[in-house]
Amino acid sequence: MHTKSKSETHILVLSKGEEVVSKIISYCKRRNLKSAWINGIGAISEVELALYDLSSKKYHNKKLSEPLELLSLTGNVAMLKGEQVAHLHIILSNNHMFAFGGHLVSACVSATCEIRLEEIDIPLERRHSDEIGLNLII
Amino acid sequence: MHTKSKSETHILVLSKGEEVVSKIISYCKRRNLKSAWINGIGAISEVELALYDLSSKKYHNKKLSEPLELLSLTGNVAMLKGEQVAHLHIILSNNHMFAFGGHLVSACVSATCEIRLEEIDIPLERRHSDEIGLNLII
Amino acid sequence: MHTKSKSETHILVLSKGEEVVSKIISYCKRRNLKSAWINGIGAISEVELALYDLSSKKYHNKKLSEPLELLSLTGNVAMLKGEQVAHLHIILSNNHMFAFGGHLVSACVSATCEIRLEEIDIPLERRHSDEIGLNLII
Repeated sequence: MHTKSKSETHILVLSKGEEVVSKIISYCKRRNLKSAWINGIGAISEVELALYDLSSKKYHNKKLSEPLELLSLTGNVAMLKGEQVAHLHIILSNNHMFAFGGHLVSACVSATCEIRLEEIDIPLERRHSDEIGLNLII
Repeated sequence: MHTKSKSETHILVLSKGEEVVSKIISYCKRRNLKSAWINGIGAISEVELALYDLSSKKYHNKKLSEPLELLSLTGNVAMLKGEQVAHLHIILSNNHMFAFGGHLVSACVSATCEIRLEEIDIPLERRHSDEIGLNLII
Repeated sequence: MHTKSKSETHILVLSKGEEVVSKIISYCKRRNLKSAWINGIGAISEVELALYDLSSKKYHNKKLSEPLELLSLTGNVAMLKGEQVAHLHIILSNNHMFAFGGHLVSACVSATCEIRLEEIDIPLERRHSDEIGLNLII
């Protein structure tokens, strides 16, 4: 991973084999960035998505291990109990152009991943909502 | 709805039951923002999309009422006849990861909606184009 | 094509018949922008996508000539051997809401294309990677 910064916009470039979510988090921790907006593209494999199951009202995870285009990575980094956490949604396509996606758990870079990371200097904080069942920005 | 601002980048967080398009517009009106660039993710339901019909050359609306992941919300706010209007495209997925989308008419938040709103300080203005049949930025 | 700039964020509006990738590149060249982050929406036709073929390990191109919604355009401009090059991923939908996409080669605007172009003032440079087979940001 290497980076270039423009005042508060950072460009992160991930290399083959790097895991997207953990690299974003470790980058933020190392620079003490508590909040950021994320946008990116790339080519990945070994993806794990979390999908909402209507019947059980729970997320369950789905793993994919084929090479995929990362058409859109969007989301943010915020603080949860003193730690940076990422909330990222991803859209992928296969070699038939078919698009699919969900909540990103993890993804391994297959060729490159080019990410715009914008510092948000008023820290975003998450707290668990019992009503919703998720960690929401408060 | 609550918000955090970083100079000219705002983070809007919408709560369960709030309607996305009207909340973006009311936020801009309240702060007298005439133009903005929008990017967001979330979880929604009760979506209305406008789809282009090849045969009639018209948009027709399509309503969906299941819980859906909002994988990508992209677009802008500009002025039309003195009023803020939103032009937003949306990509959704269901619990089979299947992605679909279109021009957003309205969407009700089911869990949360996290939006990056960037002020554009040279106002964007729309005017109706008879040739195209849409309100285009001039 | 016409544009409005806010310090370092530019809004490009492309008109019917204009080609998206070449217009972004010519805009950057004319203003001597060496690097930029791109995000956009619109309505296009005559699209050419590059798709990765698992068997041959090569990209092959796919042309589409129907009117399509441009749901998301994401990527960047960087320098390759002294010339601006674009790396853009695109997500499209047809009038059945079906989403698909890939690496954008070219696309002709059918109604409008509204683009946020953010200057990145530390130049991004690409160089060919023999290992990956692509021009990666170094």
